[in-house]
Amino acid sequence: MKLTIPLCTAASIIALASHAAVQTPVDTLITNGHILTMDAQKAEFPHGLVAIKDDRIIAVTDGSDVASYTAKRTLDAKGDIVMPGLINTHTHVSMSVFRSLADDVPDRLHRYIFPLEGKLVSRDMVRIGANLGNVEMLKGGVTTYADMYYFEDEVAKTVDTIGMRAVLGETVIKFPVADAKNAQEGINYALNFIEQYKDHPRITPAFAPHAPYTNTTETLKQLSKLSQELDVPVMIHLAESHRESEKIAERSGGLSPVAYMNEIGALNDKLIAAHVINADDADIALLKANDVGIAHNMSANIKSAKGVSPALKMFDEGLRIGLGTDGPMSGNTLSTLDEFNQVAKVHKLANKDRAAMPPIKVVEMATIGAARALHMEEQIGSLEVGKQADIIIIDTKAPNMVPIYNPYSALVYSAYSSNVKHSFVAGRQLMQDRKILTVDESKIIEEAQGFAKIVRKTVIESGEKVQ
Amino acid sequence: MKLTIPLCTAASIIALASHAAVQTPVDTLITNGHILTMDAQKAEFPHGLVAIKDDRIIAVTDGSDVASYTAKRTLDAKGDIVMPGLINTHTHVSMSVFRSLADDVPDRLHRYIFPLEGKLVSRDMVRIGANLGNVEMLKGGVTTYADMYYFEDEVAKTVDTIGMRAVLGETVIKFPVADAKNAQEGINYALNFIEQYKDHPRITPAFAPHAPYTNTTETLKQLSKLSQELDVPVMIHLAESHRESEKIAERSGGLSPVAYMNEIGALNDKLIAAHVINADDADIALLKANDVGIAHNMSANIKSAKGVSPALKMFDEGLRIGLGTDGPMSGNTLSTLDEFNQVAKVHKLANKDRAAMPPIKVVEMATIGAARALHMEEQIGSLEVGKQADIIIIDTKAPNMVPIYNPYSALVYSAYSSNVKHSFVAGRQLMQDRKILTVDESKIIEEAQGFAKIVRKTVIESGEKVQ
Repeated sequence: MKLTIPLCTAASIIALASHAAVQTPVDTLITNGHILTMDAQKAEFPHGLVAIKDDRIIAVTDGSDVASYTAKRTLDAKGDIVMPGLINTHTHVSMSVFRSLADDVPDRLHRYIFPLEGKLVSRDMVRIGANLGNVEMLKGGVTTYADMYYFEDEVAKTVDTIGMRAVLGETVIKFPVADAKNAQEGINYALNFIEQYKDHPRITPAFAPHAPYTNTTETLKQLSKLSQELDVPVMIHLAESHRESEKIAERSGGLSPVAYMNEIGALNDKLIAAHVINADDADIALLKANDVGIAHNMSANIKSAKGVSPALKMFDEGLRIGLGTDGPMSGNTLSTLDEFNQVAKVHKLANKDRAAMPPIKVVEMATIGAARALHMEEQIGSLEVGKQADIIIIDTKAPNMVPIYNPYSALVYSAYSSNVKHSFVAGRQLMQDRKILTVDESKIIEEAQGFAKIVRKTVIESGEKVQ
Repeated sequence: MKLTIPLCTAASIIALASHAAVQTPVDTLITNGHILTMDAQKAEFPHGLVAIKDDRIIAVTDGSDVASYTAKRTLDAKGDIVMPGLINTHTHVSMSVFRSLADDVPDRLHRYIFPLEGKLVSRDMVRIGANLGNVEMLKGGVTTYADMYYFEDEVAKTVDTIGMRAVLGETVIKFPVADAKNAQEGINYALNFIEQYKDHPRITPAFAPHAPYTNTTETLKQLSKLSQELDVPVMIHLAESHRESEKIAERSGGLSPVAYMNEIGALNDKLIAAHVINADDADIALLKANDVGIAHNMSANIKSAKGVSPALKMFDEGLRIGLGTDGPMSGNTLSTLDEFNQVAKVHKLANKDRAAMPPIKVVEMATIGAARALHMEEQIGSLEVGKQADIIIIDTKAPNMVPIYNPYSALVYSAYSSNVKHSFVAGRQLMQDRKILTVDESKIIEEAQGFAKIVRKTVIESGEKVQ
């Protein structure tokens, strides 16, 4: 009989020693990842690990302590990028069923979208569109999103089912809409929704006044007061269009939209303002002083030729700002990863400086910056002990990702949404090797295709433009 | 015993009748496609067919004649988009092995890229990089590309193997480079390469003087003359940078790069000019009058903050212009599909008009426009009888592509490179369900990763910036 005597190397002694010591039990251990923590130091571990217990991260290390954990499940990242889930700070997810309709119609919101919505928004449409958009986002690395639309309780159900995280704002607007005849009915709808979801671990219900010019001063003041009392966010489109600037200047005796919101006491740490394109230095100072969160939607803003937001300036001055896609009729995709490229390049172009927007800033605006924009940086946006385990893993061996000398550069200039392999939210794996584990993707797509037939019929019957 | 008697419908009578008639034998029949022909009328067949025999298209129809073909193989496109393969009019494919290096270094070409290339360009590097870039392009829907680099005979071998189509330009430059000590050696190298490949069915060898300011007037004149004699293209970077404009103005007594090229007799129907950013109306008129092809590289041009080319104006005025990605250190991806979005949006932004760049124009610039830019519109760029069967099929059921009301809009604003399912070049299927049939993708990626180790070591040893 031959005895096999193991070689006793220094490494094995350490491993044995650590095995002998008390081990930390964890649910999931992600090993051998190129970890971008996105913490304050932007710590990066090329061969690191992340340990998850329940819904939280309990360790993020360089990987040298790998033997000190016992895990129910170990996922070998094989050198792929492990990073915080992306946060889409602004969308209208259910509008996915309208995507690619009449993209180039001038004054599109008022001439096309509002009338279209008048005919087609329903509880069913909201559910079908949200299901489709959720799938697209999750497959593109988004784990949290902020939504403004109608029937947000339907969106909430879809988010609950797929397992993602969201801030969901019920629209308040002075015109009759599908789920409310006027602003007060919208507020009542929102109050019910907030009551229903205020204790949900992954869903934050919110008010969503459409914009300053589509609401009265009284409504905006009322929502500001209610949001403080109930401790819920208020999401609004702000400083987005020249029409808005004109209307608000008329109403306020010449104030900018931001200055007007300040004047009426509606700028505060509950507010999340989408777009903020038409903002001067004084406006930026007001947004900063009042701790307002900002959603920067580069792709939608340039598609509509509205202009380039001073987002880089706001970011550099320390404002709470993150990336958003806007709705799928606007962007037209829903993963911020699809936009990284444009965000970096258009800010370089606008600043006439190739060094103006280094890739790491873009990734920051999609993760911890976006978490700050939603006032959620204590929970999400970086891989740090104690935070929620919202994590994505990105393929580094796809042809478009090889080679990687700088992972931030690879993410911003080379990555596709389809390079996202795995997603976790609150410690639960929602996607594995691009397969969504919690919902039936093909059924969702079939349902959306079915609804598209109704849309097509309605649009054609109205004699409106399809293309 | 029960007899099953088939119902004799009108449709089956027609089918029987056409079966009885003489049928056309074809190699491949693509049925049930949403066909975008990109012909002069932009004919579109929502349930159409394309018939391929040998390397050519022999029918493109609305599908009603489907029974009149006998095919060796039938591919049911199941409603997916069937369109001409994309044509990338400008790249440096082998630089894929340098991707994500030092993206934000100012004056990067002269301070970083030329010295890096001095150390690392070799026959091996060119082959490894070309293999990687070919795979990325093919998976992103590119079937033809135009390349400018060194050791182009190595690139040609990779193109021949994978089965794609390419215009390959051997660099001529006045500095010593990896495969030539001076411009004359570069010309000699190119002449040998042209001799070797002039009769290849899918490879067009070409001269590639780097730029006007990196070559002498004599060299540029000599190449212009040779290109006419040998009937081969000349590819050049033109009107790309302020440095170039200054150097050429010094040399020519104040002329713009385009005017200088005209002055020395180098603007003609063999020339393909990349970038053309700094061109005024007089320059555009010269380019048009001389039938010059133009490669528009939006993504690379804005990443380097060089500016927005008047590409839309040139397109609208009927110039030969198509999309290019530039090299993978510049763009940084290689499929023009990744850029559609940016091309549309940045032209809208630059023109302050959401209707300035309808999606169909972008698709045209990526297909028949790009074919015109390469002076190859008789062979490729649209699905028309007699043309080469260079065809791609794009998934319309991916979550980011559902629903589709306008296929051009879906391609430009929603599609990812990873939505390309199948590719054909010259009638031969090169990719099926995203699997490349002609080369071993994983081996190519491993080899690129191996070379990246050498790059990393060299860069770090030089004390140069990686990030």
